[in-house]
Amino acid sequence: MASRSTIMDNNSFRAEHAADLDPETRRLTERREELLGGSYRLFYRRPVHLVRGEGQYLWDAVGEKYLDMYNNVASIGHAHPAVAEAVHAQMQRLNTHTRYLHERILDYTDDLLSTLPAELEAGDYKAMFMCTGSEANDLALRVAKTHTGGTGFIATTEAYHGNSELSSSVSPALGTGQPIGENVWLLPAPDSYRTGIAEIGPWFAEKIRAAVTDMESRGVRFAGFIADSIFSSDGVLPGSYLGEAVDAVHAAGGVFIADEVQPGFARTGAQFWGFGAHGVVPDMITTGKPMGNGIPVAGLLARSEVLSSFSDTIPYFNTFGGNPVSMAAAQAVLDVIRREGLQQHAQEIGAEALARFQELGTAHSAVGDVRGAGLFIGFELVKDRQTREPDRDLALDMLEELRMRGVLTSVAGPHGNVLKLRPPLPFGRQDIDWAVGALDESLKALR
Amino acid sequence: MASRSTIMDNNSFRAEHAADLDPETRRLTERREELLGGSYRLFYRRPVHLVRGEGQYLWDAVGEKYLDMYNNVASIGHAHPAVAEAVHAQMQRLNTHTRYLHERILDYTDDLLSTLPAELEAGDYKAMFMCTGSEANDLALRVAKTHTGGTGFIATTEAYHGNSELSSSVSPALGTGQPIGENVWLLPAPDSYRTGIAEIGPWFAEKIRAAVTDMESRGVRFAGFIADSIFSSDGVLPGSYLGEAVDAVHAAGGVFIADEVQPGFARTGAQFWGFGAHGVVPDMITTGKPMGNGIPVAGLLARSEVLSSFSDTIPYFNTFGGNPVSMAAAQAVLDVIRREGLQQHAQEIGAEALARFQELGTAHSAVGDVRGAGLFIGFELVKDRQTREPDRDLALDMLEELRMRGVLTSVAGPHGNVLKLRPPLPFGRQDIDWAVGALDESLKALR
Repeated sequence: MASRSTIMDNNSFRAEHAADLDPETRRLTERREELLGGSYRLFYRRPVHLVRGEGQYLWDAVGEKYLDMYNNVASIGHAHPAVAEAVHAQMQRLNTHTRYLHERILDYTDDLLSTLPAELEAGDYKAMFMCTGSEANDLALRVAKTHTGGTGFIATTEAYHGNSELSSSVSPALGTGQPIGENVWLLPAPDSYRTGIAEIGPWFAEKIRAAVTDMESRGVRFAGFIADSIFSSDGVLPGSYLGEAVDAVHAAGGVFIADEVQPGFARTGAQFWGFGAHGVVPDMITTGKPMGNGIPVAGLLARSEVLSSFSDTIPYFNTFGGNPVSMAAAQAVLDVIRREGLQQHAQEIGAEALARFQELGTAHSAVGDVRGAGLFIGFELVKDRQTREPDRDLALDMLEELRMRGVLTSVAGPHGNVLKLRPPLPFGRQDIDWAVGALDESLKALR
Repeated sequence: MASRSTIMDNNSFRAEHAADLDPETRRLTERREELLGGSYRLFYRRPVHLVRGEGQYLWDAVGEKYLDMYNNVASIGHAHPAVAEAVHAQMQRLNTHTRYLHERILDYTDDLLSTLPAELEAGDYKAMFMCTGSEANDLALRVAKTHTGGTGFIATTEAYHGNSELSSSVSPALGTGQPIGENVWLLPAPDSYRTGIAEIGPWFAEKIRAAVTDMESRGVRFAGFIADSIFSSDGVLPGSYLGEAVDAVHAAGGVFIADEVQPGFARTGAQFWGFGAHGVVPDMITTGKPMGNGIPVAGLLARSEVLSSFSDTIPYFNTFGGNPVSMAAAQAVLDVIRREGLQQHAQEIGAEALARFQELGTAHSAVGDVRGAGLFIGFELVKDRQTREPDRDLALDMLEELRMRGVLTSVAGPHGNVLKLRPPLPFGRQDIDWAVGALDESLKALR
């Protein structure tokens, strides 16, 4: 099993930074300290106090403007009026639960299922709704266990799949304090750059097979493999390499759960779902963050026969899940993605941004690799291009430098050295200039 | 250990009822069948298709008006304009997460903590926010384990604490298909009526002590006791009897988790929180349903030293939890409770309703017991007042009769024979007349 880092603590305000804060920011951090549990983390040594958002831009309490290069919740743009109006209209009318009939959940489900691969037929997949990606993954893992009769899961060493007990048990990105399930096998992510292996698909499939063999030799029956198809927390690994691994999962009797909380909903441009790049059809698809543009809504789409193993015996009721207001928000998001052509936009502007970031990378020896799909880009910092030794300290300093230049982002990967560039989808050409300029200046300031 | 029923299936539409539906309702149930997972359940043999709500009233698609005697999500009234406007205003401005500073979560936490017993001091408790009561209970159970080093929990035989793997493991109300945790001991609820024991406090405390002894004799270390202080799913058991049990929990080194998802937020009238009636101070308090009037928001309030056992080692981030829009909804709810005097109203009108329901009960031999606190009333149906034999079939038929008379409710209790009367808090005097009339007519129609 690979070693584990404490990535979740990478970009965090800590008590020792308090002395450098302006009085207002210090007042707020002290109030948080007094009122909120210590598990809360703030981004940045000098935290940002946001008060307004619009599109890909954010403003803080003193009127400074920021370019959001990180948040995929407000995926169609901060404070999008279409979502605000849809929610307002529905809230004025009715907000209740799924034990009464309501048309919205049915219309939305129909629409959402239409985004699945065209070869699927009506009835092949069914939907369940909840409020967070954590809840979606918790349920998916439970369904996988019921369906297969197994308890063993495979995840990657920097995966993050949620905050419930079960979903956190497959979330090593939470750090070494977080217990990993005893029936969870962790594999290094399929990272071509870091392994130096070009044909990463067969390599990763072999890791899966070996993990299953090891698992079963220890008397643990295999239930499934859960992965975010762009491996966001593992460092952003776009590509088309999971087919053989998913075949291996199926050959071993397991299910493949595609955690689409990060890559889904048009972000990767070429496809609506992240798994589309791999040419695979997951047994279960979970989604959350970008689904309601900030209104808590999440979903599980599952093969009907997989889901029925669970639903035939166990009721599942999520009080707020699939309620008319959540569905109104979710429907508005889908409508906006289509109306504003955001998937095609993500593909075009993402390609342009990637090219510009790569061009910038060649000019700076600290940039080891720049890779992406649509508007999901990893920008990897190294001490040495030859050895590819990760430069975590530089990455953390870069976050602060970028923040000073109005660009908000964070880091990912087992070494915490990959800038995760994941802006709201309206990100435009003028923003590429802002981002490239800030990256260039920050690199120059630090190296 | 007590036996388990399948209460969650009690009030459910089933396929065999389809023949009796009007074409439009049948169309919707068929669409649900096709699109949604089979775990979804619909209330009523003839499901209700709701399209509008206001205050304590709901309207269906053909314009029929209903009196909501069941839903505590829209606790301050369906479609309350104060919540709709607060959410709309915040959605137009910003909706982001707790890794940036924002004043709303701090102001709301301050306000929420001020509802705790007056003897507590600032800093004694801290807050965490999530999106559902299930998430709040999942986290509370994890914190209890980390704090005590134990894994053993005590819950009651018809408890419902959530839908995640961990919270469902203490939720026998989900039915016999739901696995109960191997370290979970289930106790019969402190039900004076059903046991015939007037002094139920010492009886229940003794059950707790015996469970802990049994647990520890089997090598399981005690972590805590989780209960809804009015035992909603166990049949609605108001009173003031938990003090000795909570002392027993503490004496055994465990923590007491008060699941306030049902009794909290002014419903029981005399106190803001359900546990207040028992004169106890829980180590952890979880809340959800009534907190945002339908916007998904939930919280955990915990003794600072209990929470820090967890938060010192494990990060917890809930993407939507505590976001500015959720906090705006939650703040509006607290403001409305105070501005409209809903707690006092619940106490006064609840007492009046209880007296009228009790008076009605004396006139019908099928009514075994009517009990309540504020606007949370249990109406228990029996085959025989002497033997107190539960009449589940009558209770289920009553639901349908009441529905025909425009009164929406459901059942609770291990025998599924207790009508759970839990209307939105604006419930008024004219509604008592409607409810009493419908109960009277329904009882006459069936017996």
